[in-house]
Amino acid sequence: MELVEIIKDSSRLFIGDEVGQDYLFDEYVGQAKSVHAVALPLTHEEVVALVKYANEKDLKIIARGAGTGLSGATAPLENELIIDLSKMNKIIDLDLNTMTLTVEPGVQLHEIQEYVESRGFFYPPDPGSKNSTIGGNVATNAGGMRAVKYGVTRDYVRTIRLVLADGRELTVGTLNVKSSSGYDIKDLFIGSEGTLGISTLIQLKVIPLPKVKKSYIIAFDNLLEATRCVNTILHSGIAPTALEFFERDMIQLSEKETGLVFPTKKGHSFLLATFDGDDASFIDQRAGVLKEIADKHEAEDYIILEGQSEKDAWKLRDTLLTAVVNYTEQVTMDETVPIHHIATIYEYTKELEAKYGLKLMSFGHAGDGNLHTCVLRGDIESDSEWHETLDTVLNLLYNKIQELGGLPSAEHGIGIIKKKYFGKMMDPVYLDLMSSIKTSFDPTNRLNPGKLVI
Amino acid sequence: MELVEIIKDSSRLFIGDEVGQDYLFDEYVGQAKSVHAVALPLTHEEVVALVKYANEKDLKIIARGAGTGLSGATAPLENELIIDLSKMNKIIDLDLNTMTLTVEPGVQLHEIQEYVESRGFFYPPDPGSKNSTIGGNVATNAGGMRAVKYGVTRDYVRTIRLVLADGRELTVGTLNVKSSSGYDIKDLFIGSEGTLGISTLIQLKVIPLPKVKKSYIIAFDNLLEATRCVNTILHSGIAPTALEFFERDMIQLSEKETGLVFPTKKGHSFLLATFDGDDASFIDQRAGVLKEIADKHEAEDYIILEGQSEKDAWKLRDTLLTAVVNYTEQVTMDETVPIHHIATIYEYTKELEAKYGLKLMSFGHAGDGNLHTCVLRGDIESDSEWHETLDTVLNLLYNKIQELGGLPSAEHGIGIIKKKYFGKMMDPVYLDLMSSIKTSFDPTNRLNPGKLVI
Repeated sequence: MELVEIIKDSSRLFIGDEVGQDYLFDEYVGQAKSVHAVALPLTHEEVVALVKYANEKDLKIIARGAGTGLSGATAPLENELIIDLSKMNKIIDLDLNTMTLTVEPGVQLHEIQEYVESRGFFYPPDPGSKNSTIGGNVATNAGGMRAVKYGVTRDYVRTIRLVLADGRELTVGTLNVKSSSGYDIKDLFIGSEGTLGISTLIQLKVIPLPKVKKSYIIAFDNLLEATRCVNTILHSGIAPTALEFFERDMIQLSEKETGLVFPTKKGHSFLLATFDGDDASFIDQRAGVLKEIADKHEAEDYIILEGQSEKDAWKLRDTLLTAVVNYTEQVTMDETVPIHHIATIYEYTKELEAKYGLKLMSFGHAGDGNLHTCVLRGDIESDSEWHETLDTVLNLLYNKIQELGGLPSAEHGIGIIKKKYFGKMMDPVYLDLMSSIKTSFDPTNRLNPGKLVI
Repeated sequence: MELVEIIKDSSRLFIGDEVGQDYLFDEYVGQAKSVHAVALPLTHEEVVALVKYANEKDLKIIARGAGTGLSGATAPLENELIIDLSKMNKIIDLDLNTMTLTVEPGVQLHEIQEYVESRGFFYPPDPGSKNSTIGGNVATNAGGMRAVKYGVTRDYVRTIRLVLADGRELTVGTLNVKSSSGYDIKDLFIGSEGTLGISTLIQLKVIPLPKVKKSYIIAFDNLLEATRCVNTILHSGIAPTALEFFERDMIQLSEKETGLVFPTKKGHSFLLATFDGDDASFIDQRAGVLKEIADKHEAEDYIILEGQSEKDAWKLRDTLLTAVVNYTEQVTMDETVPIHHIATIYEYTKELEAKYGLKLMSFGHAGDGNLHTCVLRGDIESDSEWHETLDTVLNLLYNKIQELGGLPSAEHGIGIIKKKYFGKMMDPVYLDLMSSIKTSFDPTNRLNPGKLVI
């Protein structure tokens, strides 16, 4: 069967030269001269037919959603068939018996959040890009702000209907809460960046919506004291929903970008904490403990955020990445280290800054040990010098991360841009097992070749 | 190298006829005439040497712990080398920076619970057998009482140091809270029942110990109303730590076994709920909501348990399995269905009871949809009739479970005794992927052959 027989609607099929530039490049990878075609299926059956077509024609396949990924995992390399799932965007059902939401992979995160919250339920994962698709969230095991209390995408995926590399169909996972019935193949797919199968239907766990929430800023002289405070908070059992950190220099970029004013002039390193719960008294009790902990760690300031001030503080936080992207050329990492080593990494960035003449800034999810270190071009004028210095600095940073027991990616995935570092950091036996899993699921290396798997 | 060179201490090595009966049979499987040897290593290096020995001599390997498994997964079939890890039983370290406990696989569950709780921390998974080893808990993804709030063993395993089938070593997982760095091989090992690797060191997530807890009994006329109440409880957000159900006939067996008296004469179906939290007022607030829900569902009785009465009620609950085992010959299942189908399964057992003349009793984890249906021999006199009827009834029950979207095992694993039903219930594509994973990890089928994998 030819492509035009599979996707009969010409507005959902672009062949060869018809393919728009948006599909050829992304922010991170600019290698593809052309792709075979882009197809936008509406149904599981169309995806199956596309995969079978690719097998017949011996084409490689890239499945993608909104294209908001940050690791180049959906960028084409050469002549692939791109299956764009963004038109498979229906919310099918919220089932209260199993407390699950059934969605197609092209539904965007903000649509899911709005849909369930308006019905009194809650889908906790909250990655930065609300326009990312749930299919992409699953493929990268996306994290976000609320992971410290609620976990990541992985923790909310109940089932995935998949099309395998050879066109076979399989639903992995279960609506049952517990299972000791065979190998956990579902978790193998989550975070596999499109290399093991293509999702066509996803069932997500939802929970009751917390009734109230409130946020707090704690200001410190330095990040080391801030991260010590994070450990005390986590030991206390007060379980914040979010526990973010950022530095004064980054928040200043965000102030310029938004026109908002950060609510304290004291301190250089900040924690932004949120609590949610059944009622205000529950949160106030926990906030009381938070205040005691802040005092114990000699915080410079402690600010209760309410109403507009809470919205503004979060807006400043949410704008950090955009602010730094708009400020200068840069690379944002999403490394993770055991929580108590956040400050170790930060201090190392200051050493590198002094030594290599570029600028490094940091923010991230303190409660998870997940930093976003931004390597900024700064005053480096020559392109070649910038790329050379960047590579040197990234290598040194990933070495340090490995030394501290960290990993290259907490939530964005490996894709293409982190593959080189990933290959150096991981145990060769692990890489070998990954490769044999890939081979047993996809012996012709049809799905997203060149990404993730070494 | 010969076995006596690997394990030089003769008290830790039994060869051929020296092997005790305890290793040859278990409660569920009685097929093995002999095993090659039983070795009790003390170190990772000894395990590696034993695996290499088995490769040289082309022996199959069974790794086991306390032998408390309920699916025959560690029973020998023919001439295996048994690696008994119960002497690798050291608690290595509680690290407060990463909030992880490092243990050897032979440490027993109760030792872990006592160790961390005495230090103000909490390891939530709570499978029935406190004498089971943590290695076995990981191998079966053991569940237990507190899964409804806290999840199962899988949710608390951070890393596993493994010896693979060919003797290579690998640590899977990470002490980092988040990861999008490659395939999730850790979760593949959890619940793989010794077929993919042998654990020699395990790092577990611990959380702050809740300061107070309190339990409640709600009595209903029938299980259908009880399970409707369960759904309302789960939607309310009051998040019980445990939410168990049992029937009057089972609790009567437990009363005889313990000499204790169940605290209400009203009702036939019961929920036993526990809440934990920071302080009494938090629990009382949630209990208030629980009482409202009980009233709404026209409960026959609502009892607040405190002090001795709470201990007694939980003793009665914890004794259910022993009570039925001591009462008569029986088979206990650990099936799981979507929560709202608990009553459907129960009603079906009553149909089967009427039709086949044996007795079926039920209890289990209502908040997880995890039943323990006990098929009792009752008045069937002839052995052959009992086995025939049992097989017919189990087949019908597993068919019904499959029809309702359930699974054969929630927490005990498949092992040998559920393999036949597992093979019928699961998607052939899934079984095929399981088999290819097994082959790529263990091409000579050396690790626990005959168990789990079809």
